[in-house]
Formats: sequence, C-alpha cells, structure tokens
Amino acid sequence: MTTQYHKLLEKVYEINDLGKALAVLSWDKEVNMPPKGLEARVQQMTTLSRLTHTMSTSDEMGQLIEDATAELNGADYDSNEASLLRLLKKNYEDARKVPADFVARSSQLSGPAHAAWVQARAANDYAQFEPYMEQVIAMCQELAEYYGYEDEKYDALLDKYEIGMKTADVRAIFDANKAALVPLREAIDERGTAVSDALVHQTFDIDKQKEFARTISAQIGYDYERGHLGTVVHPFATSFSRDDARITTRWYPDFLNPALFGALHESGHAMYEQGTHPDLARTPLARGTSLGIHESQSRMMENLVGRNRGFWQAHFPKLQALFPAQLGSASAEDFYRAINKVQPSYIRVEADELTYNFHIILRFELEQAMLNGELAAKDLPEAWNAKMEALLGVVPATDSEGCLQDVHWTRPGFGYFPTYALGNLYAAQFMETAVAQNPAIESELAAGRTEALLNWLRENIHQYGRKFTPGELVQRVTGKPLSHDAFIRYATAKFSDIYGL
Amino acid sequence: MTTQYHKLLEKVYEINDLGKALAVLSWDKEVNMPPKGLEARVQQMTTLSRLTHTMSTSDEMGQLIEDATAELNGADYDSNEASLLRLLKKNYEDARKVPADFVARSSQLSGPAHAAWVQARAANDYAQFEPYMEQVIAMCQELAEYYGYEDEKYDALLDKYEIGMKTADVRAIFDANKAALVPLREAIDERGTAVSDALVHQTFDIDKQKEFARTISAQIGYDYERGHLGTVVHPFATSFSRDDARITTRWYPDFLNPALFGALHESGHAMYEQGTHPDLARTPLARGTSLGIHESQSRMMENLVGRNRGFWQAHFPKLQALFPAQLGSASAEDFYRAINKVQPSYIRVEADELTYNFHIILRFELEQAMLNGELAAKDLPEAWNAKMEALLGVVPATDSEGCLQDVHWTRPGFGYFPTYALGNLYAAQFMETAVAQNPAIESELAAGRTEALLNWLRENIHQYGRKFTPGELVQRVTGKPLSHDAFIRYATAKFSDIYGL
Repeated sequence: MTTQYHKLLEKVYEINDLGKALAVLSWDKEVNMPPKGLEARVQQMTTLSRLTHTMSTSDEMGQLIEDATAELNGADYDSNEASLLRLLKKNYEDARKVPADFVARSSQLSGPAHAAWVQARAANDYAQFEPYMEQVIAMCQELAEYYGYEDEKYDALLDKYEIGMKTADVRAIFDANKAALVPLREAIDERGTAVSDALVHQTFDIDKQKEFARTISAQIGYDYERGHLGTVVHPFATSFSRDDARITTRWYPDFLNPALFGALHESGHAMYEQGTHPDLARTPLARGTSLGIHESQSRMMENLVGRNRGFWQAHFPKLQALFPAQLGSASAEDFYRAINKVQPSYIRVEADELTYNFHIILRFELEQAMLNGELAAKDLPEAWNAKMEALLGVVPATDSEGCLQDVHWTRPGFGYFPTYALGNLYAAQFMETAVAQNPAIESELAAGRTEALLNWLRENIHQYGRKFTPGELVQRVTGKPLSHDAFIRYATAKFSDIYGL
Repeated sequence: MTTQYHKLLEKVYEINDLGKALAVLSWDKEVNMPPKGLEARVQQMTTLSRLTHTMSTSDEMGQLIEDATAELNGADYDSNEASLLRLLKKNYEDARKVPADFVARSSQLSGPAHAAWVQARAANDYAQFEPYMEQVIAMCQELAEYYGYEDEKYDALLDKYEIGMKTADVRAIFDANKAALVPLREAIDERGTAVSDALVHQTFDIDKQKEFARTISAQIGYDYERGHLGTVVHPFATSFSRDDARITTRWYPDFLNPALFGALHESGHAMYEQGTHPDLARTPLARGTSLGIHESQSRMMENLVGRNRGFWQAHFPKLQALFPAQLGSASAEDFYRAINKVQPSYIRVEADELTYNFHIILRFELEQAMLNGELAAKDLPEAWNAKMEALLGVVPATDSEGCLQDVHWTRPGFGYFPTYALGNLYAAQFMETAVAQNPAIESELAAGRTEALLNWLRENIHQYGRKFTPGELVQRVTGKPLSHDAFIRYATAKFSDIYGL
C-alpha cells in the first residue's frame, strides 16, 4: 500500500465510520426509539450528516483523491484501489456540483412537504399537496442542470441511483415489458377467479410467524451471527458492516405475506452486504453497487426463490405444522398458487410480481413528463389515472389511492422509482445466467435449497460490492447489457402455467 | 444569549450529538448487535471517540471557553451559563493534563489486560493477571501526577468520578460506617437462619417477569414514552437525551431479584436523566452530576423504595397474581423479609443492602494502598482475603471469587469504586431530608406510591443535572455535607427490625 493512497484510506475509514454510526441511529430510530426521543435524535442525525458531508466534500478530500490517483496512475481497472478511486471521484464531483444553497433549500422543503402530503392523503385532497409538488418538480429540474447531462434531462437524476444508466435504455426495456406483459395481464384478468389467496388471509399467531420468518430466512442463507431481525412499521434492510447486516419486517395478525416475503426480500438485501469481500470493509465499496442491483438481490430471494413452486413443496410442511388449523388441509400447490395470485391493484406496495413493474413504469413516465415541463403539477392526478387504466386496467377512486400514495415525491428525488423495476429485470437475467452456468442451481431450487445459487451470487455479484457500475456488472456477469427478455420469458412461463393460458 | 457564548454552545451541541451517537452505538452493541459485528463496531466507536476527544480538547475549544467566560464575567453562579462554563473549563483542563501518549498507552493496555483477566479468572490463576495489575497500578500513579493533588494522591483520581470529593472525607465516612455496621452484620450472622429467601429462588416464567418489571418500573415513575427496556448480560442505564433514557435488565428463570431490583435500580438512574431540565439539553449538564449522585438515585429506587415494607404491601398482590403457584401462599411480609435477607458473600454484585458497602470499602482501601506503593500487585490476593475476613467474616476459596471478580482493574480507573457506596449514603441522607420537608413522602411510600418522592427529587436534584458538584448539591439539598449518619440510622433500624435485634 502506497503513502498517498493510505492517507486517503484513513480519511475514507473515518467518513465511513461516521456514516455507519448514522445508519445505527437511523435503524434504532425505527426499531427501538421511544416516541418522544425524536427531536433529539433528529438533531444527532443532522449533526452526523453535516459532519460526513463536510468531510466528504472538503478541499482536503479533493486533494487526497487527486494525489492518490496520480500515485496509482495505471493501476488495474478491476483492482480495489482503482475502483475505490473511481467511486470517490464520482461522488466527490457530484456532491461539489450541488450548491450548498440548494442543499439547504431541499432540506427546508422536505419537512413541510412531508407534513402537507400526510394531510393531503388523509383528507384525499391533492390540492393541499399541489404547491409542494410544483416545488419538487422545479427543484428536480434545477438539480438536473447542476449535475448536467448529454442526452436527456432525466439521465442526470437517474445516474444518481443507477450510476451510468441511460433513460433511453430504460425506456426501451420498459416499453418491451409493457408490450409483452400488459396483454398477459389482460388475459389473466379474464380468468381472475382461477386463483384464490384466501389461504394467506386467515388469523396467524404473530410469535409463530416470527419463528417461521427466522427459520426461512436462515434457510435461504441469511447469517444471523452477522445479522438481526427487528420489527418496524416500514420494513427495510441496513448494514453497519458486512458482519452486521440487519433486516426488519412487520407482522399482520390476519395476513401471512408481509412476514414471509418481507423477511425473504430484506434477507436478499442483507445477504448482498454480508457477501461483500472483507477487503472492501470500511469503504463505500462495501455495499450494493446500485439501488437496482440491490433490488435484484431482494427480488431474487422474495420471488425467484420464495415464490417458486419447488421451494414450497419443500418448506410448506413446516409452515403447515406451525399452523395446522389454517393450512392443514391445503397442499403445497394450493399455497404456491395463493402466493402467486395476480391482482391488479391501485397500490404499488401491495402489487403482485407480474403487475409491480407497471406501477413503476407509470411513475417513470410521469417523472420524465414533469421534469421536461410536459406535465404540470396540477394535471398529475388526471395523468396518473389515465396511465393506471392503460397499464393495470383499474382506476383509483381517490387520489389517496392514486398519485398521493408514495412518500417519494415529497423531496426532489426523481430517478429513484425505476430502480425498483430494474431490480426485477436484473434478477431474471442473473438467474438465467446462473442456471446456464450451473444447472445444479435449478435442481436445488426445485428441492427448496439455495446453497448453489447463493455461492454463485457471492462469486459473481456480492463479493464485488460497489466496484463496478451496474452496467459493467451486468455485462461481466451475463455477457450482455440489461434486457427485458429474461423477465418476460420468466413471467410469461410462470403465470401462463398458473393461469392455464 | 450573547455572541461568544452562542458560538461555544454550537460547538458543545455538536460534541454532545457525537457523544450521544457513541452512546447509541454502545447501547446497541450490548442489546442487539450480532456477535460477529464486534470488530467493525469497535472501529466505529473508536472513530467517534477520537473525534469527540479531538474536538473537546482542541485549542479552538479552549479559546471558545475563554472568550465566552470573559464575555459572561460576573454571571450568577447558579445560572446555566456559568455552570456550563465551569464544567467545560474543568473537563478541558483535566483532558489537557493527560498526554496523548498516555491515552494511547492506556488504550493499548486495556485489550490485553481484559483478555488476561478473563483467562485468569476462568483458570482461577491470579499469576496470569498479575503483570497487568502491576501496569494498572503504575499507570494510575502516573495519571495522579498528571492531574495533580494537594493532600493525597488518591484525590487526583477520585475527583474524576466524584468531582471535588476528598479522600480524607470518604475515609472518615467509610470508617464510621464500618464501626457501626460491622457489629450489626456480626449480630445478624448469629441469627442467620431467621430470614429465608427461598421464596425468590423458584422457577418464574420470564415473559411474566418482563411484564411485571415493566409494570413496577412504570409504577415508580419511569416514563416509557421517553424510555425503553432492553435485555442484556450486564445491566445498565444510558440516555441519548432526557426524552430517550433507556434501561436494561437480565432475566433468570430461577431467581426473581435481578428482574425486579435490576429494573428498579436502572429506572432510578434513567429517571434522573429524564428529570433534567429541558434547558440543559444537548450540553454535558444534561446528566447526573457525578457517579455517586447517580448511584444515589438508583439505590433510592432499588432499596429505599423497592425494598421497603409498604411498597410490597401495596404491590405484592399483583406479583402473586402473576405467580400464584410460587407466591400464592406467602404474605407480603414473607416477601419483604426474603428480599431483605442479609447474607455476607464473596461477590460484590450479589451483595445485600447492608453488606454491599463493605465490598466497596475493601476496594477503596486496597486502591489507596496500591496507589501509594504500600501494596504490590503480587500481594493483592492476600490483602484482599484479609479484608474480606475483617469486614464480611468470609474468605473466598479462590481468587476468581476474590480479587479477580471485577472488570474494573483491567484499566487505570482507580477512584471509581467508592462512588457505588457513596450512592447508598447520599440516598439515605436525601431521603431523611425529603421526608422532613414533606411528610407525605413517607406516608405515600408506606402505601406503595412514589409521586411525592419523585416530585421532590425532580425539584431538588434531577432538574439541575450537572450544574453543581456533588458536594455543592448535597449542601444545597440537605443543608450539610455528606455524612455516614443517615445511612447508619436507616440500616440499623431496618435490619434490627427484620432480625429482631
């Protein structure tokens, strides 16, 4: 290790430790903090956040990066050192592009915008939120100019969540998705009663749900010696190191899915971080490479593993044994069908595997229209409902169930939503490659086991953390760029089978 | 608020927020962290600790204190501003007296010393720990010289935990304690079988213990909207603000006391912090004034409230209702006697209310002898056992149950132990004053209620946080310096009654 690089690394470790401390405070806030502790906690988090921002964007940091880059000139592109320098430089330059005044205005907006959104949603009165939506649009436009772009304005924002990804590429993929899967969704609608999910809508003891969630997450490979399961209102995964990657979930007394598929989903996220190479520790490389790739790992475990027929043929008897009154007379096939019911709904977070992407495509298209000045804040509800009708065949009766349902637009964060759907597409493409490279993965999955899959993921994806951009990673792993093909093949086969199409 | 003082306050807030973040990391480490998360957590805590130390001891901080002091020259001694400046100046000067080299050596010692202690204790082989004990003694001697002292070397260290307290005063108080209470202990020994604690040594369902611990801690005034009860191996209380002051406890399936009296003890600590005045928030004044005064609040709730006859006459029926098989045929008086059994033992943390102080007096005397070069590390076990015999009438069969029982001497921290016993003495003196000033406190306690007591504590002690030294506080509250009188009166009356002496 060389001198300048080592100096840089010491500063990186320090910033990383502060950032992880902030993550612990944030986790604790959701999981343990008593209600009245909020004010002081927000102050503490603000202080930590300001300190890390100041350190990361200081002239000193710029100089450290520059000196280390000069020193390591010619280092192998794939090396940890070169990868870290690329990422630090990108983050540093991005952060320096945004004026402090904008950061302050953005932070001042988010409190009142969030409060107005809560009220507007409760009152089903979009008009109360409209002035904030206008400001959010204007700030996204402003932000895009700061970051700059070559082709489309939206590229500037998308890049912050899915580094290097182009809007045009996402649009092409999403359009292909619509073309293939909207007709499939319509065909399924016509056979809507062919599948019942009554099985998962019964009364389930919460302690037993917790017990099974722990069992099934450990079964797929989530390491509890390096993890922890907490209870929250809005589930998430977070990590304080590869050796302390936590999951959270919520429990419904009358609905089994949130416990089961929430735990599998968050385990997928956490297993990604648990699988990063130890050499990347205490650097920003020790996490998922992008939100979309991260989501591919959670969707992989939630859907490709957790909503797979073979998985439940193997594990349903254990669930049955915990809930004999509710599930005793059902078969594994009944359960498999129940957890795969396709049901177009108004609410994104309740969507099934097939229709989920439509919710995202809708938001992706609306965000671009707003960013480009083609859709005004006041016209959002109408545009929302028109797209719901076209994509999902349903129209919400209220804006609370429509354009007011997500918290995301209370801050200038356009570009985030697409990563949810990209996760599904990456996951399908990764799985096709994995099975092609190691057929044992498929036969293991058919027997409810994931060792071979997890080994493949660790070897090909997890260990690299954030060394490569999502585009680089997909190309390296699957030999081609991200495409719609794999997901369309997967979804068409699976749901045609279930619905007898 | 004036300009220089305001500038100082901004820095104080920042340092406080970092320190509280460190406290959250520490709490999480004990309560939730998975075992393998330790290495990264220690790195994160080290970084936060180094940053707060650097900020607190910087030349900039010294200048800020000096400027604000000049500006506020003549401010009322009792004002928050003057009190904060006094404390900051004291902490700043103390911290600057210790060379960075010493801090580094001390931190390098603690890891290996702790590991050697764990091994020596497991092997019952003091010789393995002796070289570290030698270093701890030498470093305590060195530290005392850095801090400086007028009368006795031990003053320099004691002052760091019990600010302003003199060794000679503690010695006089402890000697009077011995003179009065060793004979009482001996008299009780002769009637050793008069009280049985079999009642609390039965099988108790842990979920029910938790339920009762929550009920009883809320009953005495611990505010769960500003608190949280966690499970740990070594119980403690901590606070992240007055609105988030947490307690922890442990649960034994076959022994009721740790759950009950642990929860009451830690609630006493946490209620102190919950009671600090909101104007002190985000400053080092928003906590207990010293370890001894803090311990007085925990002992007050654990013993003067929680081991009081009236308290259990009121609350025993609730406990009985939870454990009818174990406690159904016992009376409140039976329970009161069981939880007040006097039983000299080898282990400090298992000691009863009467003999606890003897364990501390022993350590206080040995620490002075070691610090003054009158007792060498190699002679510690023998000296330990001789004092056990004199004070408690028992001699441990092994060093593991003797001088190796506490973790405290794995770091240069002489001066800490006395605060445990001082807590008992402060508590008794505060209670005498409280009852004299408001007789309703006594009649409420006799009916199991603590509102009047808690109001008195908040009014006279809690609200001030750390504005005054313990000596100043005791003088203000009770009109005289700390004395042995109240505790001796209290303990003599209580245990003479129980043991029919």
